[in-house]
Amino acid sequence: MSDTPDSAVRTYIQQHRAAFLDDLAEWLRIPSVSAQPEHEEDVRRSADWLAASLRETGFPVAEVWSTPGAPAVFAEWPSGDPAAPTVLVYGHHDVQPAAREDGWHTDPFEPTFVGGRLYARGAADDKGQVFFHTLGVRAHLAATGRSAPAVNLKLLIEGEEESGSPNFRDLVEANAGRLAADAVIVSDTGMWSEDTPTVCTGMRGLADCEIELYGPDQDIHSGSFGGAVPNPATVAARLVAGLHDEDERVTIPGFYDGIPPLGDAERALIAELPFDEAAWLSTAKSHGTLGERGYSTLERVWARPTAEVNGIGGGYQGPGGKTIVPSSAVLKLSFRLVAGQDPDAIEVAVNQWIAERVPAGIRYDLTFGASTRPCLTPLDHPALQSVVRSMSRAFDGAKIRFTREGGSGPAADLQDVLGTPVLFLGISVPSDGWHAPNEKVEVDLLFKGVETAAHLWEDLAAAAIG
Amino acid sequence: MSDTPDSAVRTYIQQHRAAFLDDLAEWLRIPSVSAQPEHEEDVRRSADWLAASLRETGFPVAEVWSTPGAPAVFAEWPSGDPAAPTVLVYGHHDVQPAAREDGWHTDPFEPTFVGGRLYARGAADDKGQVFFHTLGVRAHLAATGRSAPAVNLKLLIEGEEESGSPNFRDLVEANAGRLAADAVIVSDTGMWSEDTPTVCTGMRGLADCEIELYGPDQDIHSGSFGGAVPNPATVAARLVAGLHDEDERVTIPGFYDGIPPLGDAERALIAELPFDEAAWLSTAKSHGTLGERGYSTLERVWARPTAEVNGIGGGYQGPGGKTIVPSSAVLKLSFRLVAGQDPDAIEVAVNQWIAERVPAGIRYDLTFGASTRPCLTPLDHPALQSVVRSMSRAFDGAKIRFTREGGSGPAADLQDVLGTPVLFLGISVPSDGWHAPNEKVEVDLLFKGVETAAHLWEDLAAAAIG
Ligand SMILES: [Zn+2]
Ligand SMILES: [Zn+2]
Repeated sequence: MSDTPDSAVRTYIQQHRAAFLDDLAEWLRIPSVSAQPEHEEDVRRSADWLAASLRETGFPVAEVWSTPGAPAVFAEWPSGDPAAPTVLVYGHHDVQPAAREDGWHTDPFEPTFVGGRLYARGAADDKGQVFFHTLGVRAHLAATGRSAPAVNLKLLIEGEEESGSPNFRDLVEANAGRLAADAVIVSDTGMWSEDTPTVCTGMRGLADCEIELYGPDQDIHSGSFGGAVPNPATVAARLVAGLHDEDERVTIPGFYDGIPPLGDAERALIAELPFDEAAWLSTAKSHGTLGERGYSTLERVWARPTAEVNGIGGGYQGPGGKTIVPSSAVLKLSFRLVAGQDPDAIEVAVNQWIAERVPAGIRYDLTFGASTRPCLTPLDHPALQSVVRSMSRAFDGAKIRFTREGGSGPAADLQDVLGTPVLFLGISVPSDGWHAPNEKVEVDLLFKGVETAAHLWEDLAAAAIG
Repeated sequence: MSDTPDSAVRTYIQQHRAAFLDDLAEWLRIPSVSAQPEHEEDVRRSADWLAASLRETGFPVAEVWSTPGAPAVFAEWPSGDPAAPTVLVYGHHDVQPAAREDGWHTDPFEPTFVGGRLYARGAADDKGQVFFHTLGVRAHLAATGRSAPAVNLKLLIEGEEESGSPNFRDLVEANAGRLAADAVIVSDTGMWSEDTPTVCTGMRGLADCEIELYGPDQDIHSGSFGGAVPNPATVAARLVAGLHDEDERVTIPGFYDGIPPLGDAERALIAELPFDEAAWLSTAKSHGTLGERGYSTLERVWARPTAEVNGIGGGYQGPGGKTIVPSSAVLKLSFRLVAGQDPDAIEVAVNQWIAERVPAGIRYDLTFGASTRPCLTPLDHPALQSVVRSMSRAFDGAKIRFTREGGSGPAADLQDVLGTPVLFLGISVPSDGWHAPNEKVEVDLLFKGVETAAHLWEDLAAAAIG
């Protein structure tokens, strides 16, 4: 056994385990909270730290890229082989806010090892998962005897993901040439559970809009006028209620256009996962399921689009009552999109649908935010198969199952701008507590991530992805 | 002509006109704003002032009745005649807040005469209309040579009407014996216009409720969970949207039970009024009409019940978007009721209707406020005919038309507790600006009110209302 690449990788990792954890802890001590202006300097320090660490890892190029907001880190390590494919790893070095008084048992910025877990803000989301690529590529070189990776390896680690990536798309567009790749590997997601290693195959897209509705010029007396003039809060409510039919399907004409049917094979793969509804509800902090008829809960959040009201407001919301017809109302709607849907077409359809539904006497403004496209990698894509094979080797030959992400992320910008398929390599588990107090990473899984990354570059180079 | 009662009344009023206006101005100088704690003492002073004025008028009994809030004034002047009916006049001595900087051209508490108008807070709502009864009863005595009114005359002038009359019903219940009457005359409404004298025949009732809806234990991520769990804001919107059908009729089963159809004669009387939709919309500060199919705007606000959303709120309402499934939502609903509807039955019907519509996974609390019954006096009621005749005499034989009030008021408590029909005698016009800056009363109309009151007691004594 000791001569297989797998054992060589493991041996190398074992030798560098302690130093890797020490380095990661050092990075985790930098409170790179992008949403809090008082941490602006820390986010910059985090970017500098990472660039230095990548240079130490061996990347010949490691640069801090400034943006109008927080800086990103770009690194590049060309393969010697002119035929080698190019792979871009995406992650982020900024973290969510965290304070001891939010319920942390330890200082969120003083990494603490307890029972095989490393507790710290960013341990799983996303510094731990970015950092496993540093030891991963060294193990890849050590096990294969190469002096450069089997692929042209690039990293783009942004600094504003936890603030909504406001400058990310511009950054990618401005640097599309240097970022060009044959595949993107996103290490900012997770697995089903410790016992069920999985690969994520896609994320939903997102379109959102705000609708302001204006009725009377001021709140008016519902006794004197109620029942005879249109009420903007009623109109807002009717829009929301009209979004779905009795099967909880979205009623906007054309909404489902272009979505391929969810195939039996794919449904079977989803059904294979050990889904526990009670546990899922507990994670969702919800007390019941409700969604599109004919689909399971996982299908609803992963593979089906939605129309959701994120906020509604109009009239009097304080204690007691106030007998008014409100002057205005506001609606915040968002649409999660799946592969095949086009956010621009959705915007047109929503526009027209609303225009047809607002009665005379009510004025409205409709504003769309920036949209995110869905991304989905076919199960038979060779790069996805490489990720699966590499992960299975790291997990002692375990069967790798498939998940998706219901959320939407900046990975889609890489897909769109670079025209590149997006793959996901993440080893975090639901109990890691992203964005919550006591965020942690399972140390064993962190090294499975290192190991997967160590196998991946050679496997990708062999796969026909270029 | 100079010997008819009408000319005797006019002569008496003419002689006392200047003193009456001086006295009213003195009362209007007291800023009896019940909603502002800093005016607590002024409201008390206003009650004392009125009680003293009523004693001076000749009422043998004039008392200040304290409540847990602002005091009311009760006065009583028994008729000599044991067969005389008893009439209770209702009004209020508190006023809406007013400040020069709200857009007043004069000091709101320094009564100012300009071009036949008296500008002051309370000039029309309601001190002017309460006060015309003082000169009215004196003119009645002078013209008839009586030493006591032809009816047992009672006045109840409350001090919290502009604060929602929180203690009024209790006060009436506690003093039901002393307040007992054969008819209530409410002088706290208005007429159609200067050229179209009218008598109001009823007010709508009111039932209102608050519904708090609870979904996830906290706002949750709409990407991770959206489309698979019930959203309380969606449920709130569906409740509101479900309240009406496509004809804008309320869908709650039983809602219209007990309402007699609006007869042709009554519809003709409403249609007779010189209604100008553009002017009405301008008063309503609205930009279109919408209401129950098959009814005119006036019928909708006067004679038909409504279900109105006064407020709705849930989720994120700030700038931009936030991709959450909100944890909770709140709805404020109110129902205007017409004669035949029972607020208790409406409460039961709403309760059941909501219970059937909230899906599993959403918890809710439904709270009803205190309700107000509708009141409506039949057109052929003898006391109503007395008001019409007296008003016609004051308005030189003009035809008196009929209106209703879309709003709801404490008059209904008198009707309920005392079991007494409620009549309305008001001479204010829409341009008087109730609750607005530059409130005024038309001085000529004020004296038409005095004159109507002067004729009314004898007419009522002759009518078979006891
Ligand atoms: Zn992340
Ligand atoms: Zn009033």
